[in-house]
This record gives sequence, C-alpha cells and structure tokens, in this order.
Amino acid sequence: MPIKNDHLKVFIGNSHPELGKEIVKYLGFEAGKIKLSKFTGGETYARILENVRGREAVVVQTGTDKVNDDLMELFIIVDALKRASAENITVALPHFPYARQEKKSASREPISARLVADLLTVAGVKRVITMDLHSDQIQGFFNVPFDHLTAMPILASYIKSKNLKDAVVVAPDTGRAKTAKKLGDRIGADLAILHKARPNQQEAEVLHVVGNVKGKTVIIVDDMIDTAGTATRGVEVLRKLGCNKDIYLVATHAIFSGPAVDRMKKADFKEVIVTDSVSVPKEKQFKGLKVLSVAELLGEAIKRNYENQSISSLFD
Amino acid sequence: MPIKNDHLKVFIGNSHPELGKEIVKYLGFEAGKIKLSKFTGGETYARILENVRGREAVVVQTGTDKVNDDLMELFIIVDALKRASAENITVALPHFPYARQEKKSASREPISARLVADLLTVAGVKRVITMDLHSDQIQGFFNVPFDHLTAMPILASYIKSKNLKDAVVVAPDTGRAKTAKKLGDRIGADLAILHKARPNQQEAEVLHVVGNVKGKTVIIVDDMIDTAGTATRGVEVLRKLGCNKDIYLVATHAIFSGPAVDRMKKADFKEVIVTDSVSVPKEKQFKGLKVLSVAELLGEAIKRNYENQSISSLFD
Amino acid sequence: MPIKNDHLKVFIGNSHPELGKEIVKYLGFEAGKIKLSKFTGGETYARILENVRGREAVVVQTGTDKVNDDLMELFIIVDALKRASAENITVALPHFPYARQEKKSASREPISARLVADLLTVAGVKRVITMDLHSDQIQGFFNVPFDHLTAMPILASYIKSKNLKDAVVVAPDTGRAKTAKKLGDRIGADLAILHKARPNQQEAEVLHVVGNVKGKTVIIVDDMIDTAGTATRGVEVLRKLGCNKDIYLVATHAIFSGPAVDRMKKADFKEVIVTDSVSVPKEKQFKGLKVLSVAELLGEAIKRNYENQSISSLFD
Amino acid sequence: MPIKNDHLKVFIGNSHPELGKEIVKYLGFEAGKIKLSKFTGGETYARILENVRGREAVVVQTGTDKVNDDLMELFIIVDALKRASAENITVALPHFPYARQEKKSASREPISARLVADLLTVAGVKRVITMDLHSDQIQGFFNVPFDHLTAMPILASYIKSKNLKDAVVVAPDTGRAKTAKKLGDRIGADLAILHKARPNQQEAEVLHVVGNVKGKTVIIVDDMIDTAGTATRGVEVLRKLGCNKDIYLVATHAIFSGPAVDRMKKADFKEVIVTDSVSVPKEKQFKGLKVLSVAELLGEAIKRNYENQSISSLFD
Amino acid sequence: MPIKNDHLKVFIGNSHPELGKEIVKYLGFEAGKIKLSKFTGGETYARILENVRGREAVVVQTGTDKVNDDLMELFIIVDALKRASAENITVALPHFPYARQEKKSASREPISARLVADLLTVAGVKRVITMDLHSDQIQGFFNVPFDHLTAMPILASYIKSKNLKDAVVVAPDTGRAKTAKKLGDRIGADLAILHKARPNQQEAEVLHVVGNVKGKTVIIVDDMIDTAGTATRGVEVLRKLGCNKDIYLVATHAIFSGPAVDRMKKADFKEVIVTDSVSVPKEKQFKGLKVLSVAELLGEAIKRNYENQSISSLFD
Amino acid sequence: MPIKNDHLKVFIGNSHPELGKEIVKYLGFEAGKIKLSKFTGGETYARILENVRGREAVVVQTGTDKVNDDLMELFIIVDALKRASAENITVALPHFPYARQEKKSASREPISARLVADLLTVAGVKRVITMDLHSDQIQGFFNVPFDHLTAMPILASYIKSKNLKDAVVVAPDTGRAKTAKKLGDRIGADLAILHKARPNQQEAEVLHVVGNVKGKTVIIVDDMIDTAGTATRGVEVLRKLGCNKDIYLVATHAIFSGPAVDRMKKADFKEVIVTDSVSVPKEKQFKGLKVLSVAELLGEAIKRNYENQSISSLFD
Repeated sequence: MPIKNDHLKVFIGNSHPELGKEIVKYLGFEAGKIKLSKFTGGETYARILENVRGREAVVVQTGTDKVNDDLMELFIIVDALKRASAENITVALPHFPYARQEKKSASREPISARLVADLLTVAGVKRVITMDLHSDQIQGFFNVPFDHLTAMPILASYIKSKNLKDAVVVAPDTGRAKTAKKLGDRIGADLAILHKARPNQQEAEVLHVVGNVKGKTVIIVDDMIDTAGTATRGVEVLRKLGCNKDIYLVATHAIFSGPAVDRMKKADFKEVIVTDSVSVPKEKQFKGLKVLSVAELLGEAIKRNYENQSISSLFD
Repeated sequence: MPIKNDHLKVFIGNSHPELGKEIVKYLGFEAGKIKLSKFTGGETYARILENVRGREAVVVQTGTDKVNDDLMELFIIVDALKRASAENITVALPHFPYARQEKKSASREPISARLVADLLTVAGVKRVITMDLHSDQIQGFFNVPFDHLTAMPILASYIKSKNLKDAVVVAPDTGRAKTAKKLGDRIGADLAILHKARPNQQEAEVLHVVGNVKGKTVIIVDDMIDTAGTATRGVEVLRKLGCNKDIYLVATHAIFSGPAVDRMKKADFKEVIVTDSVSVPKEKQFKGLKVLSVAELLGEAIKRNYENQSISSLFD
Repeated sequence: MPIKNDHLKVFIGNSHPELGKEIVKYLGFEAGKIKLSKFTGGETYARILENVRGREAVVVQTGTDKVNDDLMELFIIVDALKRASAENITVALPHFPYARQEKKSASREPISARLVADLLTVAGVKRVITMDLHSDQIQGFFNVPFDHLTAMPILASYIKSKNLKDAVVVAPDTGRAKTAKKLGDRIGADLAILHKARPNQQEAEVLHVVGNVKGKTVIIVDDMIDTAGTATRGVEVLRKLGCNKDIYLVATHAIFSGPAVDRMKKADFKEVIVTDSVSVPKEKQFKGLKVLSVAELLGEAIKRNYENQSISSLFD
Repeated sequence: MPIKNDHLKVFIGNSHPELGKEIVKYLGFEAGKIKLSKFTGGETYARILENVRGREAVVVQTGTDKVNDDLMELFIIVDALKRASAENITVALPHFPYARQEKKSASREPISARLVADLLTVAGVKRVITMDLHSDQIQGFFNVPFDHLTAMPILASYIKSKNLKDAVVVAPDTGRAKTAKKLGDRIGADLAILHKARPNQQEAEVLHVVGNVKGKTVIIVDDMIDTAGTATRGVEVLRKLGCNKDIYLVATHAIFSGPAVDRMKKADFKEVIVTDSVSVPKEKQFKGLKVLSVAELLGEAIKRNYENQSISSLFD
Repeated sequence: MPIKNDHLKVFIGNSHPELGKEIVKYLGFEAGKIKLSKFTGGETYARILENVRGREAVVVQTGTDKVNDDLMELFIIVDALKRASAENITVALPHFPYARQEKKSASREPISARLVADLLTVAGVKRVITMDLHSDQIQGFFNVPFDHLTAMPILASYIKSKNLKDAVVVAPDTGRAKTAKKLGDRIGADLAILHKARPNQQEAEVLHVVGNVKGKTVIIVDDMIDTAGTATRGVEVLRKLGCNKDIYLVATHAIFSGPAVDRMKKADFKEVIVTDSVSVPKEKQFKGLKVLSVAELLGEAIKRNYENQSISSLFD
Repeated sequence: MPIKNDHLKVFIGNSHPELGKEIVKYLGFEAGKIKLSKFTGGETYARILENVRGREAVVVQTGTDKVNDDLMELFIIVDALKRASAENITVALPHFPYARQEKKSASREPISARLVADLLTVAGVKRVITMDLHSDQIQGFFNVPFDHLTAMPILASYIKSKNLKDAVVVAPDTGRAKTAKKLGDRIGADLAILHKARPNQQEAEVLHVVGNVKGKTVIIVDDMIDTAGTATRGVEVLRKLGCNKDIYLVATHAIFSGPAVDRMKKADFKEVIVTDSVSVPKEKQFKGLKVLSVAELLGEAIKRNYENQSISSLFD
C-alpha cells in the first residue's frame, strides 16, 4: 500500500539516481525536490527545494568509486535538511563507504569506517539503513538506530532456482568463511575456503583450498567485488583441483574497479551475480553478469521504519 | 630499566590482583595505594589513598565471571581518579568484558561491547590497553587511543618449542578461521575449520570439518575458553577422522566457566595452553594445563605508553 | 482508565519482578516480552522479544544487594531498546543505586551517584522516575527530565491511621533532620535528632539526642534501612531518656543488609514500616514488619508521563 | 615560596578585585593583564592583554548581588582565554553563584546551580575551586576536577580563641543541622536547631528550638548571610528561652542583601563573623562585624593545584 | 486562524513584556503562566506555573541594556522548562545579544556571540528565532534549527510609502555596505558608503563618503542604533556634501544607549525609523521617532514553526 | 632558529606538497613519514610510518578543486594520528574549504563551512591555522583554538614597492568593502565599490561603481580568485569610467577554476598578485601573474604555536 501523506520525503543523492528512483516508485510517491551541483571550484552544493519542517527525511546515497564526493555530498545534504528543520534524517546507504577499513590491520592506520560513522552522526543523521556490511561489527560504530539489511535471500533464491547439483560455496579468504557458510546453509551446499600460504619462507605465497571441491559446482561468494583479484586467482586453483567447469561468482556490492571486468571476463565464470546496491554502468556490463535489484528491499525497509513496523521480520 | 619518578601510578582492581602485582614488579615500583571494598548493601566503594594530582594513572582490571562487579568497580575507580585530578587515566584490561556481544546476531539485541566502550569513556578513561579481542573491530568502538596487544607470539613460541610434526591448526567455527590462520602461519601448520551443518532439514545439526586432519597433530585455537563446548565436541569428530592422539587446545583467555574444566579433562587433551589474562584459581587447575604469563607484556606496554615509545614495534 | 493502545511498553528487569508485575497490572496491560539471562561466563544478556520501533519504552528496575548486576542489566536493556528504535526510554528506578555516594566525604572519593547518572544517560535513558532519594540534589546530576516521587504520603497516612498521641519524629543523624521534619509536619509530631558526639577527646563517641522525647511515642524515620545500625543503637538511648515503650521505625527503602533483621528484631520495635521499592524476601520478613506498596504510585507516574499529565499534582 | 616562572597566570574579574589582589600577592607575582569593560549597550567586554599560549590560567571571580553580570563576565573571560590557547582554565569562585537553587523544592523549578555548572563547562572551564557550598552535592554537578575548600578551620580557630563557656551551636533550620554539627565538633559545643512549625492548622507558623539553649552562649551558624531573616528572628526566640546575652552569628559568605545590615544591628549580636569570600563594602560594615580573610587559603589552593600537591592535606 | 489546542505554550521573559503580549494576542491565546523574580541577593528565579509535559514551549526574550540579566533569566527559564518535560523549547529572541562580538577583531578577544549560542544550546534550547542579525554568519554558530527573520520588508514598505525622490541609501561603514545595498534594492535607491580614513599619518581620522549624495535624500541604514555615534557624525559630512535637508535614519534594533537620544535629536533627522524588537521606553521617545511593530512577524513565525509551514515563503 | 628535538612532527597531505615542503624547510627538519594512497575502489588510505606517541602533530593541507578528496584525506590522516596517540593535532589549512558557504543565502541551504568545522573537530583536530577567511566569523564556527593569519602585509608590501600614484582599491561587491578598505588603509589608497544594480525592473542588471575612479590606478582586491567573473567584468566598467590603463588584481587564494585564466588574460591586467596558499600549476600560470609565498608565514605560525609564543604579534 503506497504511503499517501506528504510527511515522509525521500531525497536522492548523485551517487545512484536509478536506485533512488526505483525506491520512490516502490513507495508510491515522487522524490523530494533538491538541487545538487558542484561549483567550478570543486565544492559541492545542495539546496532543498521544498518545505521539510517536521518531516521525516530519507537520503538515498551509496559508496561508488568517487566515494569522497559521495560522502561530502551526503554530509552537506544532511546539514541542509537539519537546518531546514527536518524532524528525523535517515540515510539509506546500501554500500557503506570505507567498510573494509573497519579495524587497524597495521600500526598507525585509521579506522575509517568508524570515522565515517562519526562524521555522519555529527552532520545530523539519526538513522542508518545499509546492506551486507563487510563486518557486522560496524553496527557498533554507531549509537543511532541502524538497520542492517541483507541481500542474501535475494541472491540465494536466484541461485536455488538453478538447481545446481553438488555445489560447494567457496570463501575467497578466511575472513569470509562466515559469509560463505551463511550462503551455504541457505542453498544446502558444502563449504570450502581459499587462503594464501607460504610453503616455506623461501617460496612465494600461493593460494590453498581448505575443503573438498573435486567434481563440484563452485560458487565463490564475497560481500563485494572490487578488483576481483582473489576470486579470479582462485578460479585457477579450483579448476586445477578438479571442480566442475561452471563456476559462479556471487556478491552484493559490484564495485568493479580497475581491472575487475577484464579479469572476470577472462576467468570465464558461468555467471557473475550481484545486486544494484552500486550502479553498474553500461561500459562495465558483460555477458554472464546478472544484476538483481535491491530497490524493493530498501523501499520496504524505509516504509517499515516510517510505519514503525518490524524490519527483522523481513528476514525471518 | 625501572621507572624512577613518582609520576606514573598503577592501581590494581579486585579482579586479578596477582597479575597487577606482577605488572608493578616488572615496572619496578610499588602499586598505588587504594581502598576497595563493598558496603553491606552491595555497593562498591573505592578511595584513592595517595595524591594523584597531575599524575598518569593506570588501572589494572580484567573481566572475570563476576564481570558486572569488575566493570562497576572499574568505573568507580576511574571516577575517583578523575575527581582527584589524575592527568590521564589508562585502563589495562587484558580480557575485555562483553567482547563476544560485539554485534547484533539477532534482532533487538544489545551491542554490549560498544556499550562498555561508551561507559568506560564517560567514566573518564583516556586510553585502553587490551589483548586478543574476540573481534578486532572493537578497537573502532572507542575514540580514545587503544593498544591492542596479542599473546600470539607467546603462545606460538611455546608451541614451536615442542617441534610438533604434521600439525594442523583447527578453528572451532568459521568465525575463528582468521585467528587459526594467524597461528598456523606463525608455527608453519595447515588449517582446518570445524563448522556446524545440518545434512538436511529433518536431521540434527552435526559438526563437520573442512580441511584435512588425518594423521595430523591437531591444535585447536580460540581467543577464549569459556565452557569449552565446541572445542571438546570437536575433539570427538577430529578423532573419528583419524587425527593423531595428541590434541592441543590453545587460547589467550581462560574463562573456564560452568562445565569447562570437566569437559577438558574428559576430552583428554595433551595440553591446554592459556595465559594469565584471567586468573585461573587453584580449583580450576588440572593436569595438562599450562598458563603462560602476559604480565611482562602488559608491563612493557604500560612503560612504553608512559615513555611515548612505539608499542607496535613489540610485535614486529 | 487502562491504556489501550500498544504504544507504551513496560519491560521488567530481574531486580524486582513482583513490583514490575504490580505496575503493569495497574496500567492494565501485559509486560513487554524480553529475554534476560546470564551466560555461564557471568555476562548479562538481554533481548527484546517484540517490536518496539517508535514505541515509548519503560524499564522497571531497582537497586538491590546485587546492585552492580542490577545496573549493568539495566544499561544493557536500555542499549537493546535504543538499537531497536524505541522512541523514548524511561527507567523507573524506585531505589536509586549508589544514592548515598552523592558527594565526596573524604578526599579522593568517587561521586558514584553522579557516575550512575552519566552511565544511564550514555546508555540511552531519556527520563528517570525514582523515589525518596537520599539527597534531593541527585536530581541535578541529570539533565534529562526526572520525576522524584515520594512515598511520604503513603507512609504518613498509614501512621496517622494509628492515632498516636504525643508523637515525636526522630532523625537518626543531623543529615536526616530535614526528612524527619517533613514527616513530622505531615503527622503533626515534634522533632528530635540523634547525633554522635564525643564528650571530650579522651572518651568514646556516644549518641546524643537533641530535643525532648520523654514520655513520647518515638517514630524514627530514615530514607532507607540498610544495616539498621544507627536506628537500633538510637533505641537504647531514647529509652534511657524515658520515651514510651512503643517505638516505630519508618523508611521508604528496605535494604535490610547484613545484621539488619536481627538488629530490628532485637530492638523490639512496635512496628517497622517500609515500602516495596525493594523486594523484601520471605527470609527477611519478621513479625512487626509492615510493607506498603508503591506499585500504584509508580504505575500512575508512568501513566501520567505517557499522557503528559502533571505528576506534581499527585502530591498536592 | 613564590612561584617564579611565568607559566601560571591569574586574571582577576570585576566582582572582587581586592580578594584577587591579595591572592596574587600571596602567590608572589603580578596579576595577568586583562581589559574588562561594559559597552554602553550593556554588553560585557573582555580582552586578555598578554600572551597566554600554553599557560595555566586562573580566573578569580565570586558571586555578588550582581551575580548575572559576574557570571557572564566570567564566561566571556574564559572564552577569551580558551581562544587565546590557554592550556588549562581554572576558576577560583569562592562564593558559588546560585548554590541555593541546587534542587527542585517545588514542581517546575530550575536547578540553577547545575545550570551554572554546565554553562561554566561549556565556556571552557577545566577546574573549579570554591568554598563552603550550600550543599556538598554541588560537587557532583561537575565532571571537571573540583576543589571544595572550607573556611571552617579559620572560623573555628577565631571562635576558639574567645574561650566561650557553655557554648551551643544553633542551626537556623533543619537543612543546616549538619553544618552546625561540624562547627560544634570543632569547637566542642552542643547542638540545637531552629525550625518553623505550626502548632495547628489554624495558627501561624512559629520558630521552635530543638535542643537546650538555656544559660548558654549561642553561636548561630550558616553557610551564608543573605537577608539575615531567620537568624535574627531566631535571636528573639533563643533569648526568650533564656540563652546568654552574647549571641554570635557565623557564616562564610557575607551576601548582606536588602535589610540584612539593619536586621543584624537591631538583633544586637555580640559579633558577626564572616570571611571576605564576598566583598563587604564600607557602607555595609558595622560595629561588631569581623571579616576574616580567605585569600591565603585560596592562594595556597591555586599554588598546590599548579604544583600538583595535595589540597586535602590542607584540612587534615 | 488562531491556534486552538493547548499544545503550544508561549512564556514571556522580563526583557520585553509588551512585545510578548502582542505576540500571544496575534496567536489567539493566553501567555503561559510563569513566575519570574529576583531574590534580594541578586539571583534570578523562575518557576513554570502550569503543566508543560510534552508541550511545545516558546520563550520570548530580547537583548536590552541589561543583557546579562536577560540572558541568565532566559537560561534559567529554559532549564525549568526542560526539567518540567517540555517537548521542544524555542527561543524567540528578536535582538540577538552580543551579536556584534561575532569575530575576533583583535588578538585574545572572546567570540561572545558563539559563546551565547553554546550557552543557549547547553541550557536546552532546541530552536532559535531571531531577526536582522549583525552578521548572517551567526546562524552558523548554532547547530539547532534557526529562523533568521528580517524586518527589511516592513521598514522598506514604510519608506516606500513616502515616495521619496532621488534617494540614496548610506551605509555608516564598509561592514554595513551589504545591508544598505539590500534596502537600496528594495526601494530603488542609490548606494553610498561612509568610512573613516586618515588623509595621512599625521592627521586625524575623518569620515569620508564613497558615492554621490549631492542633491539627494539620504537614508542612513544600520542593523541597530546603539549610541548613534557614526550615524550622527555622518549627517554633518553628508550635509557638507550637499545632500537634501531631510535625512532619514533606519534600523531594526533600537538600543538607544548613552547619548543616543540626544545625538539623534541634535542631528535633526526628518525621521528615525525603528522596530519594537527592543522596547523603547517613554523617556527615550522623541518627535520624529517611528516605531514599527514586528510582533505579527514573530507571531506568524512561531505559528508556522508549530504548524510545520514554510517560514522562508514569508519573505518571497 | 630551527627546532631541534623530534617532538614536533609535520605531515604533508596530497593537496599541496610544494607548500608543505617549504614549510618544513623553514622549520629546519624533515617532514613526518606517511603513506597516502587511493585504493582502486576510490577510497583514500593513510598510514603514519613513524612513532607519534605523545608528539605534537601538524597536518598541512589546503582546499583545491578536488576539495572533497582534500577533506576526506585530512579527516583520515587526523583519525590515524589520533589513534596513534599523537598528543595534539593541528591542521594548517591555508585555504579553508567551503569558506564561501558560511551562511544561508537562501532558504534550506547548508552552512557547509560550519559543517567542515564540526567534521574536523569530530575527527580529532585540536587546533586550526588558516589564512584570509572569506568571513572572519568562521573563527566562531570552532571551539578549538584557531589562528587566523593574513597575507595582507605580504600583499600590501609588494604593492607599496611599486609606488603607484593615485591608487584606488576597488571591492568587487559590497560584501568585500571591508577587505578593500583594509588594503586601502595599508597602502594609503582611496576606496571604491562595484555592485550590481538594476536601473529598473524591466532592464538587465548592470555593474555600478560607488566612488571615484577617474584617472586613478585601480587595484581590485578579493580574498580569492575563483572564476574571476566579477573582477574581469568590473574591468570593463572601470575603464569606461576613465581609470588608468594599468589595473591590478590582488587576492590571497588562487583557485583559478573554469574560465578564470582565460578571463584574466583577456582583461589585460597589469599584474595579478596572489599567494601560494593554493598551488598554481604550470598550465594555469601566465604572463603578469605574481605568486608570493606564504610558506614562511605558516612555518613561523607553526613554530610559535609549538613554542607558545604570540602569533598576533606577527601582525602588529
């Protein structure tokens, strides 16, 4: 049932207008009027073009390869909404920026994901909706309410519809073992894990596989595909170990940066399955790429938030 | 070289006095004078018994099975130090309380580890020193400087001294795969992972092993041993798969709660190797238990903090 | 008139379930569904079992002799409610923990009552309802709205129904003089004050009485009965000064810790009158103990808060 | 020993320049250069006239009958110091403004003392030094270090030098019973308490005395003398009860507002003993008034703070 | 249309009761009941005399020549409203105090306007409504929503009704050039600027005029008239340059401090046009003074805020 | 005198490495070691490569035409320094980003300069050094110490060395009148102001000049040159009014975006005088452009900050 009154307003940032439009279409109303531009000197400008006093405001933005522009634009939109007396400001941020910099892996590194959480909060964000975080713990970087959605059911349902036999879900490294297990449990597949090892100090690091893949249909799963490096290097090793010809690559966030598209074409995946949490522009699309939409899921989460209905029950 | 002046003061909480004493011994001075007690009505009382104006203060506390008392006592000591004009207040908290509640695993759960971070901060803590966190991301729950030490070198060095052949490090679940890999890389052992799976919807969940353990010396590794449930159930499965008779269990934090000690005895480990980050009282000690001390590591970290020397270089 | 909609939810902590149940009974609906437990390792766990998005949430908890568990459980419930998007979180905390540690009586003490205020606030509490604070000034430890109820009318009304002649209200020390005067004014009784004095430097401290008690019916009044030490020692002195045989002891909070029950029995009070702000378990009940209920008062305060009605007018 | 370097700077507000000058004289250096004025439109102006980068800055101010000007001037000086990069800003505020509005005595009142604490903190104050607060609990209104001095030893020592026989210390109301007891214990005197009572509903409120004053030398003690109403009305009652002719009035803070001076003259006190925590201008001085100086006490506290020495040991 | 329900409450401070009364008259209801007084000792007291739980509260106050009293009274009222559980607290503060101290013009000055913003925020203000700020940037001193109204349309409309020929708007200094231009654009007049210059180092500073005023009707415009110094000195210079006899002085805020009234009388303005944002008492009124009311503008802004309607559209 | 110890560390961001190098050269030591890069996915990475515990850290960054990258990189460097236990973190930010978005010029705009202030503060910045802000009031957007330097003496001294006769300083709009006056006072020149006006509603807006420029040498002054639109359009008008052939354009910040360089070349300025607060790359340099260095000024300010010396005295 569409939302009829004008109390909920959804504003769409520049990072992914198509997704934003699908979301408001699902919600059944027009997007909020906003002017977004860049001055010649490089500074971002935002102006809200309609009254938002006392309204619930939602901003749809995502992390792309211009992530610093995405973030600063988001902070500035939120500042404008706050000063225009919006009652509550929610950001729907399906691909959370800097999610992989969520701990110190080496001395004197930043924890940029926590920094982003603090910057969003100080700008005036009162709620965050996001999807398939690189680490669940990022929820704890915020003290505002936080809805962590997952595209796993959408991805799993699509894979199950293929009726693959003897499937094994493969994590590209030990840090992803848990994600792989989650998908494996949903589609009833075994588990295997790629990891880098060094046979001895003198030799180069090589990719190992923990678990059995021989004669199996491999589904490599990750939260995101950035340069597709590990996954495509894994393909070689897995094939040597005698897995089936058809290999699937599955992830929520399709960053596809640098050599990613070339690598995936060359790796000859049966299918690469992602969502539209990040826009995949024409020039990055290729044969065998399947993009599933999360617009309805995001729209429904926004609606349930607005109507104070349970969101967790979406995933039961 | 011991610290000579009286500018650094170390106060020892009630949760682990032995460890505190070892730390100040390493540092070469006396512990700060403090009165700690409980009123008959159950309320904790603390009073600092020497002048701390402008001093650097360190409080040594850890998370035991009376964790709520440990925490409230810690908050109260910190409040007393703050109001007594201590310049900086550091907590050395080797076993971080509520570290396993660091994300929402189910809807409407708390993130208690973040809560603890906020409570410590509001009480007046300006720096945290801890060890082998259940998740590295807990660092990001704080905005104060945070030194995350690891007992891994101490544990690995002890294991390497045994010259085990054909060793395989086993993670008790997919979430620990990364920890296991870290130990494996240090001691040059293979990797395997236990995980629970359900052959089909109608059958009960059973423990599976991903990776090859046949004929190998198994080292199960975890960040902590609480009830020892998964590890001891894993022993059965691993033995069925033909691993060597000698099985080791390794972890930093020895919680040993409920049936833990009985289970470990029954599982007939060759050795259970832990540290003294938590006190292991006499009645929980058993044959085959090895407790390695982290007091020097903590003492050195406190010293380097005080003298503005690098701590990361300790682990290079 | 009971509250019909499902917008107000009351969750009951483990510290005093009987009181919680009486409160929701008065309000006319069921308590909110919540799971509360302790892990074997000693950590408290809470999970809210029903949707609370946008709801007004109230948590009923009180300070018992396991006050650190009471507080940590409360913080954790509040964190869970906050992250579950409850709109406002009120704690109904009839016996405020650490209320007696509300100032520095000696150098380098904490001010634990202020600490508790800060911990509650950082956890996410937006309103506090409490009762007969040890010091009124604790209100000023909070910046969130704070309803300070008093059981004085309930206690006074019960005493007045006895039609005592020639009554004198006695404060157990000079700090309680004001409390005694309040009760005295309500029931039309004289005032006297116990205080410790030292006749001269060489002699031991003895209890003195300021004011006239000869031939009078004594009512000793305090905000709480903890170990009952001063009150029972006072009885002796008061009897020596020729007061009537029947002596009453009145207080809001029945901590009854350590030797309290034995002392009160031995002191042979005509009646000890308290409220159920803290649970008095069977084994602490004795002949001559009268427990008056504050459940209706708390329920009514919760209701008026929810309906934006005046609470002060309850006490006019 | 005077402080030699130029690292500590003391700035003197307009509320009590004489006291400020005595303090810097004790410390052995010149007051910091500052311009203080009011614009014709009523706005306060402050400018620091010397470099304070990285210096410890102390501002001496007190609460007078132009308390709002005193406070705003103080906030503005602190803001100027903060923006001029002073390292730490301490206020020495012997008479704490709005100390009597430290709780809600009636519904919908402010707690102005807590408000003052928050305003000072947000302006940039990092430490407070004050004296004989109306309530000790005001310490808990702050989270910055707070030194609560007392003039009691100065006052008691002066009184003891008179060798009064059969003295009784009288509190002007039940709320001051504790203060009176403290003085009584120091000078070895009995205790009595004035309180207002209403014989029955139809009659007017009258002053009662709890305790024995007959034939005794009365010393009425309060934290401050504002209008001197209760104390002077008490004199009448006490005389009727047969106390000695010589009555003393003792307090730390000499507000002397409205009819205070006339009332005290008329009450014919033997001596009124106060301190210079507030300035007593010529026109408010009278025969029998004794003003003891707290400048050395304040100066010593500033010095010990600066040198990280214990202040509590001043009062042992 | 008047606001009918009792959900919006307007409380009137002591700084400008006439304006407050006009505002509530426009809104169509009674002012909120409040007790405001000063204790004899100089401390301000406020008590809210009606239930405000969950209500929207507005406080009307302005900056007068007793600005420190105005501000402290405002903070105290806001504290009382906050503790009385008012839902939102708005201050309508037509003449913003300390607006001219909004930057550092010399080293080690305060930025008192920012300080006032922080003090208001910490006291509990959730929204500010003000008018013709000395600098627009003061909006950025706040993070709460802020409605910056302007009396320019009211002033311009009054001036236009006079049909002045050949008018030139004159800024009293370069900092006011923009303000003058705004009025000039509204009434179709030229622009000129007064500025102080020093012909050479040896001579005294003199007032110069940039722009052509010969034969023109001069309208000097400023945001406020404080001592009227520059404006009245400008009159002399402008007349020497041959402007018309009739000179107008226009400003929003009529501070009229010190010699202002005498100067304006002597300068023989045709008319001095101000608003009632500050009260102009009888003794400061003079022939040729025109006071235009901003009560309706403020009332309408309060109403639109309450009803979540656009305020900017008021000035389109 | 160079700073010898290793307690002060200067880290140089990617926005202006040349300026950073000049600054550390002036200070007499090496820049701090830092790794700065961008991941292929667009995310910025920073890692501090040397121990900074307890050190004073300064980051040199400026606002370029990639201002969002400049800012996010700055926040991330600051976060890394904070977590690496740097004692104090100063940013030297000669061209302050988003300085022109420092107020709401239209409804529902952001105040991005305040937002930047808050983002910097939450990231961990403890002091800001900047130069010739678009508005002085931006100082008040911060509560951390803030050094506002000016290149005016450097620019004025260069212009004075030319001994221009009959010079007039021209502001490009009324908002810049004050800046122009400041330069005019320094070099002993008259003042004129450009402003846009509309002769009547039907005609287009045209540029007017207030003040006399005939036969004079014009110096147009602004805080920054962005697209150079107004200044170059002004040239035409000023020439029509008969100013001298030689026209100078002076500004601190050389943004030179979009058509700026072409416009300035075409306008045929005698000289365009700027500083190196922003880098002017080769391809934007042209005949007649003079770039004066502010590296020594910034270096000296950093040095004085570190040594707690007065910075304002630099400009006396």
